[in-house]
Amino acid sequence: MIYNKKISDAVIKRLPRYFRYLTDLKLSDITRISSRELSEKMSLTASQIRQDLSCFGGFGQQGYGYNVEYLYNEIAKILGVDKGFKMIIIGAGNMGQALANYPNFGKRGYKVVGIFDIKPELIGKKINGIEIMNVDALEGFVKGNNIDIAVLTLPGEQTRYYAQKMFSYGVKGIWNFSASELSVPEDTVIENVHLSDSLMVLGYKINNNRLGG
Amino acid sequence: MIYNKKISDAVIKRLPRYFRYLTDLKLSDITRISSRELSEKMSLTASQIRQDLSCFGGFGQQGYGYNVEYLYNEIAKILGVDKGFKMIIIGAGNMGQALANYPNFGKRGYKVVGIFDIKPELIGKKINGIEIMNVDALEGFVKGNNIDIAVLTLPGEQTRYYAQKMFSYGVKGIWNFSASELSVPEDTVIENVHLSDSLMVLGYKINNNRLGG
Repeated sequence: MIYNKKISDAVIKRLPRYFRYLTDLKLSDITRISSRELSEKMSLTASQIRQDLSCFGGFGQQGYGYNVEYLYNEIAKILGVDKGFKMIIIGAGNMGQALANYPNFGKRGYKVVGIFDIKPELIGKKINGIEIMNVDALEGFVKGNNIDIAVLTLPGEQTRYYAQKMFSYGVKGIWNFSASELSVPEDTVIENVHLSDSLMVLGYKINNNRLGG
Repeated sequence: MIYNKKISDAVIKRLPRYFRYLTDLKLSDITRISSRELSEKMSLTASQIRQDLSCFGGFGQQGYGYNVEYLYNEIAKILGVDKGFKMIIIGAGNMGQALANYPNFGKRGYKVVGIFDIKPELIGKKINGIEIMNVDALEGFVKGNNIDIAVLTLPGEQTRYYAQKMFSYGVKGIWNFSASELSVPEDTVIENVHLSDSLMVLGYKINNNRLGG
């Protein structure tokens, strides 16, 4: 199945939320759910949910709702959770270390298999059982281990440099924590984490609570 | 001006992006820009941009485009950048320390004025010039300094506990880095950073590049 040409970014961004809610439902042994119930949980309209899920072939049945296990598995497949991704982190500072220790990535099929830095005092140190390696070892490691994703927790100027390197070694996706926007070659993807954007949305909402009562 | 009742979340989420692009334009001494040029930079349609900005009274002029300085200032005001927010971070682990060191928050009017933890070995240590304090000091500090925002970089179960405390001490917004979804009292706001969601979107796109060619 080829979805990517027709699915809007807004729908794609909601898929991990569906996945999280379905994970919770499964853990609570709930086996089916109506689009109305799911919509209440997720603060979306029921028609929005039907529309979203219909993008992927629609897994609901009139009068029955959604089979939680089935929907979970389908969304897991769409998201590639069942497939698994191998990641490296470049930049073993606080953010890199925080991400290496994050328990949820592994549960969702994203495995950190290498951490790299340039600072002599960090190299050899272990984070979550993974030894920090010298960036000199990147090429051999990435090519030898078929790395899917490089997580860049680096200053802006270095981000651009390492992103180019990663793509040239065959990495397919970059998860970028710097404020730089990067341009990417065809058939590779980049996902930016703009933490300031999220913080500014919070500030906006606080301000409007104050102004609006 | 009271905006909040009519503005969709999708528009609010784009505001920080406008702000970033306008900041760049200002730094490049560009004084005006058409909605077409802005749309190319931002990968949005020109009509989308006109529609977004019209939510806030529309700052463009037919045939002239947007005055960069004016639009920057208006969006800064809407976002509350001109006003400034005082933040504390609860949880001085890797993520808390990474955020305390982040240079962009200060530039956007978000000032970290306190960091708190429970671990004796962290208390007294300085991060970016700010001493880590014991959580016992939270109530006095938050009330005494009119803290606007509490950043919670804590495990899920502790997040809920400290979020309640913060709201009871008068904090208006929580920036939540745990996977827990929190319910919030009236007239307070919460912004969740779900890093796994962003990573799963990246995985989806990589998968679809593979499948779709």
